[in-house]
Amino acid sequence: MKATIITIGDEILIGQIVDTNSAFIAKSLDKIGVEVHEIISISDNKLHILDTFSKLQNKVDLVIITGGLGPTKDDITKKTFCDYFEDELVVDVKVLHHVTQLIEGFYKRPITQINKDQSLVPSKCTILHNQVGTAPGMWMKKENTVFISLPGVPFEMKCLVENEIIPKVVQEYQRPYIIHKTILTYGQGESLVAERIEKWENNLPEFIKLAYLPNPGRVRLRLSARGTNKELLEKSIEENIVSLTKIIGDIIVGFDDDESLETVVGRLLKQQNKTISTAESCTGGKIAQVFTSISGASKYFKGSVVSYATETKINVLGVSENLIKEHSIVSAEVAKQMAINVKNLMKTDYAIATTGNAGPTKGDLNMELGAVFIALATPNNVIVEEFNFGQPREKVIDRTVIKSMEMLRKEILKNVL
Amino acid sequence: MKATIITIGDEILIGQIVDTNSAFIAKSLDKIGVEVHEIISISDNKLHILDTFSKLQNKVDLVIITGGLGPTKDDITKKTFCDYFEDELVVDVKVLHHVTQLIEGFYKRPITQINKDQSLVPSKCTILHNQVGTAPGMWMKKENTVFISLPGVPFEMKCLVENEIIPKVVQEYQRPYIIHKTILTYGQGESLVAERIEKWENNLPEFIKLAYLPNPGRVRLRLSARGTNKELLEKSIEENIVSLTKIIGDIIVGFDDDESLETVVGRLLKQQNKTISTAESCTGGKIAQVFTSISGASKYFKGSVVSYATETKINVLGVSENLIKEHSIVSAEVAKQMAINVKNLMKTDYAIATTGNAGPTKGDLNMELGAVFIALATPNNVIVEEFNFGQPREKVIDRTVIKSMEMLRKEILKNVL
Repeated sequence: MKATIITIGDEILIGQIVDTNSAFIAKSLDKIGVEVHEIISISDNKLHILDTFSKLQNKVDLVIITGGLGPTKDDITKKTFCDYFEDELVVDVKVLHHVTQLIEGFYKRPITQINKDQSLVPSKCTILHNQVGTAPGMWMKKENTVFISLPGVPFEMKCLVENEIIPKVVQEYQRPYIIHKTILTYGQGESLVAERIEKWENNLPEFIKLAYLPNPGRVRLRLSARGTNKELLEKSIEENIVSLTKIIGDIIVGFDDDESLETVVGRLLKQQNKTISTAESCTGGKIAQVFTSISGASKYFKGSVVSYATETKINVLGVSENLIKEHSIVSAEVAKQMAINVKNLMKTDYAIATTGNAGPTKGDLNMELGAVFIALATPNNVIVEEFNFGQPREKVIDRTVIKSMEMLRKEILKNVL
Repeated sequence: MKATIITIGDEILIGQIVDTNSAFIAKSLDKIGVEVHEIISISDNKLHILDTFSKLQNKVDLVIITGGLGPTKDDITKKTFCDYFEDELVVDVKVLHHVTQLIEGFYKRPITQINKDQSLVPSKCTILHNQVGTAPGMWMKKENTVFISLPGVPFEMKCLVENEIIPKVVQEYQRPYIIHKTILTYGQGESLVAERIEKWENNLPEFIKLAYLPNPGRVRLRLSARGTNKELLEKSIEENIVSLTKIIGDIIVGFDDDESLETVVGRLLKQQNKTISTAESCTGGKIAQVFTSISGASKYFKGSVVSYATETKINVLGVSENLIKEHSIVSAEVAKQMAINVKNLMKTDYAIATTGNAGPTKGDLNMELGAVFIALATPNNVIVEEFNFGQPREKVIDRTVIKSMEMLRKEILKNVL
């Protein structure tokens, strides 16, 4: 089963925005065994869209289109759908009801004609309900190809893919059986991991593919088995993971593809009934934000003091002025005191503190660009590590966040064992 | 003059990575008046690549190809080039010299065969010098179409586009004159903005196109003028922006395409010599993180108390326990006290406080999902607004951050006037 993804929008073709929708859709299709043949970005031009549709007709099973569904004039996907399917736009009362409820009931605004027009859909289409927005998704079949149109706003698109499209495709199409299993590793680079597992990799059966997905500070290994014999695939994946764990068990932190390090750490804290707080300088609140991006974090995350200014470190966190003078604001000593003090202030079991120079300029700091100290206060002690994450600024911040989580995870596990 | 951009790589088609190279190339081409007709992502498959090349032959003037990372995949791209142009790979001595210098002189490593093979290029190609890496760019012409192959590593690709491709295209091709102007608006939705400017939009001249680029909480309007008479285009764009400003001047915050709201607010604070702090509950540190994402924010951003737990609101921020009992943790009263107290604690001119229920479950809170209070303490008073941002969780957090920034911007402007 093959699919093509089309994103419509001049803003992509002039490079004003990066197309992130396609990657999300591709990932979702890949998970259920649908092969994405091509991803194409084209302009808001009727002839161009029609020409692209024609070329894909009966060549692929599924064409998923995002963008071009908004209420304004530059959005022409719906009219083009009507042309391609020789159809006309009609008001769908259910969609009209939903749009009215959303605008009047929820946003408390009078509904405008432009809002109402969102309920105009091609008469032959199957409507995909958009719970979180006004533009519905549309599913239309011509001969052997289904064309699906989705709004381009990422969270609306995601909601429709997850709740409408994937279940419908799973129900209506036969696909090969496919299993993906992701092994999450932290702390070693891609080439080192590759060297350690080379023999194991060479012994993988034909129907299992291995992919390396490197991110700063972590490598995910993805095994994909594809075939018709479900039991054989499952058994083989399982056996290979057991043998892999024997080789690199020391760096494996989890097996869930979507499981982030913060999810792993959060679960550990909850299991141990422990709490955490942070005192952040160079990370500027990002560690707190990463913790609180997970629903239910209030069980273990008490809070943070983002002490961006030196006076905040002194006045709110109670870091001693002399210590700062003696060792400089970016130092192991200051990081340690920040961690200890925020732990006491928030009455938590653990605390993370960061201080560093993220750049891009040295500013008043006498420290190298990219120099960072991370301190971790645990129930028993305080540890501090020094890093240099180079440049640019965003990388320094991101790496500091990841390293902090990694240090925290290790310490929690130590205290369990 | 038309171009197509191709990215090659299985990792894009299964959604493992987002293609950011294409947006950079598209933006660079757009600036010099080259129209990008399509952006296509295809797999590391020779037949697929050859088929795509054939379809583009003489349809566009320029095909720019990136991707095919790693030594084995690079082989595919180069060999496919040889197939398509009926050519063969030969060693280029200049490239070999450069690779040797880079590896042995700069990285201080012995050169390997894989490194040396980087100097193998199709005999008929024009080499584009890669200053920062070992894989050269290749420029090959067949009939009316030029095919350019670039390494996929973003900084190498960028360097080649800026220093080699753009100057060569400018020299060798005649292009139309093109102007883009972006108008940044905040505070009203796409459909409302569209209604307000409908008449103005209908009166735009043929050669000016308008596009709406909506993001949560903001809409960018992009005007693009294309033609041969530079003066006419510039004059017309300018006149139309003046008349647009008369209609929606109240929601226009800037004209710089890449300017974010936090940059605008940061600049205002710096200009006024004012400082800001935040007390964040439902935003969990994201407002702090947004402020500190901008280098130089320490001039105006003093810090934040992320008071995720109720006890942190009481112990660190000093919110009264009775007030919480009386009004609940998600209330205008608590938001107000958070803002006032963090403003005093951090000794700043302004302070933002957020409290709400981001969801996805109601938890212990008695408040509706998506309900948020934002309080803003200014040098003279405290204002508080109630919102309901619905679901999902990420949207609630993002909208709260944007609304806070918007409220802050308005208040700063009031205090200036």
